[in-house]
Amino acid sequence: MPDVSVMKLFLEPRSIALVGVSRKTGDGTNVLENLLQYGYLGKLYPVNPNASEILGVKTYASVRDIPDKVDLAVVYTARALVPQMVRQCAEKGIKAVAVIAQGFADADEEGKILHRQMLQAAREGGVRIVGPNSFGVANAFLNLNTAFVRFELEKIPIAAIAQTGMLFAGGARLRFLGKAVDLGNACDIGFEEVLEYFGTDPDIKVIALYLEGILGGRKFLEIARQVTAVKPVIALKGGRTPLGAKTVLSHTGSLAGRDEVYAAAFRQSGIFLAESFPELEDLVTTFWRLPLPKGRRLGIITVAMAGGVIATDACARYGLQLASISPETKHRIAQYFPSWLSIGNPVDTGMSAFTAAGVSGVFREAVVALLEDPGVDALLLLTPTSYFHPEIYNFLPVVSEASRLHPDKPIVSWLNVPDERVMAEVKQKGMVNYSSIEVAVKSLRCLADYAEFRQEVEGVAS
Amino acid sequence: MPDVSVMKLFLEPRSIALVGVSRKTGDGTNVLENLLQYGYLGKLYPVNPNASEILGVKTYASVRDIPDKVDLAVVYTARALVPQMVRQCAEKGIKAVAVIAQGFADADEEGKILHRQMLQAAREGGVRIVGPNSFGVANAFLNLNTAFVRFELEKIPIAAIAQTGMLFAGGARLRFLGKAVDLGNACDIGFEEVLEYFGTDPDIKVIALYLEGILGGRKFLEIARQVTAVKPVIALKGGRTPLGAKTVLSHTGSLAGRDEVYAAAFRQSGIFLAESFPELEDLVTTFWRLPLPKGRRLGIITVAMAGGVIATDACARYGLQLASISPETKHRIAQYFPSWLSIGNPVDTGMSAFTAAGVSGVFREAVVALLEDPGVDALLLLTPTSYFHPEIYNFLPVVSEASRLHPDKPIVSWLNVPDERVMAEVKQKGMVNYSSIEVAVKSLRCLADYAEFRQEVEGVAS
Repeated sequence: MPDVSVMKLFLEPRSIALVGVSRKTGDGTNVLENLLQYGYLGKLYPVNPNASEILGVKTYASVRDIPDKVDLAVVYTARALVPQMVRQCAEKGIKAVAVIAQGFADADEEGKILHRQMLQAAREGGVRIVGPNSFGVANAFLNLNTAFVRFELEKIPIAAIAQTGMLFAGGARLRFLGKAVDLGNACDIGFEEVLEYFGTDPDIKVIALYLEGILGGRKFLEIARQVTAVKPVIALKGGRTPLGAKTVLSHTGSLAGRDEVYAAAFRQSGIFLAESFPELEDLVTTFWRLPLPKGRRLGIITVAMAGGVIATDACARYGLQLASISPETKHRIAQYFPSWLSIGNPVDTGMSAFTAAGVSGVFREAVVALLEDPGVDALLLLTPTSYFHPEIYNFLPVVSEASRLHPDKPIVSWLNVPDERVMAEVKQKGMVNYSSIEVAVKSLRCLADYAEFRQEVEGVAS
Repeated sequence: MPDVSVMKLFLEPRSIALVGVSRKTGDGTNVLENLLQYGYLGKLYPVNPNASEILGVKTYASVRDIPDKVDLAVVYTARALVPQMVRQCAEKGIKAVAVIAQGFADADEEGKILHRQMLQAAREGGVRIVGPNSFGVANAFLNLNTAFVRFELEKIPIAAIAQTGMLFAGGARLRFLGKAVDLGNACDIGFEEVLEYFGTDPDIKVIALYLEGILGGRKFLEIARQVTAVKPVIALKGGRTPLGAKTVLSHTGSLAGRDEVYAAAFRQSGIFLAESFPELEDLVTTFWRLPLPKGRRLGIITVAMAGGVIATDACARYGLQLASISPETKHRIAQYFPSWLSIGNPVDTGMSAFTAAGVSGVFREAVVALLEDPGVDALLLLTPTSYFHPEIYNFLPVVSEASRLHPDKPIVSWLNVPDERVMAEVKQKGMVNYSSIEVAVKSLRCLADYAEFRQEVEGVAS
């Protein structure tokens, strides 16, 4: 049974025992040192029988010696000691244990025996386990990260539930560490319990999953259906091919299952399936930063019509519609263009290169006009390069104002040579920039799909 | 008929007439100003009836007044003047004219008439035309770029042939401007002539295309077959869906044709079809920077096994094989790992986190061992983030040395949080980093496909 109260011990602990923390410091792998640097908001109890203090913090020989109440124990010892440590935690009354050690069900015969002993100790003692083969948990709002390597935390409304530390490490576009649980081998606590917890966590707006296999899949899908009715869930699945499934066995010891079955079950539960790690980042960012659109009618403004052609192809492929812009909108834009140009969607501002307003001015006007057009549900801006018409980025203030006036119209872009300064500004303006036109269009399509899904769910509920 | 000598006038001109160059300077759109700043290695003759000099360069009222031989004329006038300018170029004996002006076959009735008049003038006068609706030509080796906006040139062995200025603008990962022709509407000179020219150009190693439609497709495919036998050609095609094809008509006035027909014809001719603009950049970079492998057997080294799982899935999807690493290689690596770990491919160096050598040391050893294994044709390195084990980047010197010792084994990577410094170093080491595991694997697969294609072609030829 999912148990939300124990998940609170894992994710909002007021006190943590660090069992088996090393005396070695300074190389970024000492979790006590890392937690002190993060400024963890709770109390820390290092446990190491060979030290009386580490980094000035009083250290205990065993969890049983800690005089105070402990919410969470994180076990960093070698695997052979883990069953015994779990028993000691039970004796101390600790209900939540994260096991970092590797080499259990995914490894040799001895590992499988230790796995059974660890689980038995947990069940007898009323202890729940995250892991083993895990980084444990992270909560940026508490400056907490139990991984044995330093990762930057960020107070963002993103939660990650993963059978890997890869989401702790984050990606080129997104750090996932608002809150996170690395389930590792998921010997006890699985996706369903953590998902249910984050589903009701007011700090969390979007949930990212990396999974290789799910035991108790039906329960998971039931919970997923409840959670996706209130917040988006995006999953990256490992082991989708027979070859990948074999590798999964040696990683987390999970059964990867048939890809079609996962894909269908996820679709029914409203879970989005990302096709790659960067796509996971892109979709999570999309749902975090953009509003849900009213429909699928896309307006496109470009500086190079080849971009418009590719975006049109992407609309056809990924299921968005090309908005029919109104005669009023066309008329409003036409004044900036040569008279021979027939204005359509995509709007090709490159055609105004030799006019008085210039590409930059026309681009700004087009952004405002298309957003005000009731036939446009979302806007895609294709603005090549920062050295091609640098002044074109003058459209950014317009985007800021326009997105305030049209809070239900997502604005996305593809800048084919993005520079740092512009990207930082894009972020502030509530617009999301993508690594390709295809990714931008596909992300908007997911946003439109989710808007429809939510409407259906709310229709059923009312 | 393709005419290589006229292409030499377009791409290696010793003298250029800039017809209709503006007196307005300082805003980055004056082509004379730009060419002076680039330091174009030939002679420039500005033509403007309203000026006797621009930026200190003697200016002529007409091309007919230029006293010297002119290889290339670039026409920046309004569209109505273009037929007349082409006639004057013919009178002057100029055989190569690039037309920048917009609003011809893609526009209104008047544009269609001007299009016919321009072509008639060209045919009568023995003039060949690039454009209209074009940026003209670029050649970094001559510091030449006729576009009316400034783009950085780079002396790289990459040529672009495109119906767009987008390749002049370049992308986030690659500038295409070694040499380039923007065919625009391709009213006269088409892909086949430029492709044939670059096929024999010793400065050029890889050719990138952006095309929307090809007239005379059979001739093009014949030439493509000749060119791909000696250097790789990668194409991005616009208008692959019916919706996109409609947009193409309003862009370059081309007939986009049926996607299946293009895809099949390209495959037969050895042309690679990129699925997006970033993929075009990735594939061009792949062929430029990496050697052709002997086979499809991929070795994978990762710091997080989830990356290994995803890479294995990608191998299955994109048609690479997971290399069976030899008992010797396994033995060599095993000493660095816990005894319970069964070494396989992918090699999960994360499992050495608590060992004496540490992840960084083991990663280096694994790179050398896998490259020395005769069962490994190519290597994929998955090293998450620069803040996760920063010292792991110590493998870069090893890569440099290893790639020198194994010049036929391409080495690629996915660094999920790449930092600038590391990326610059990666470039120098002859390794290519990709934006995702999937792109890395797909790129290697294209490399392996091309290696086979070349072997077949050479088999037929010998």
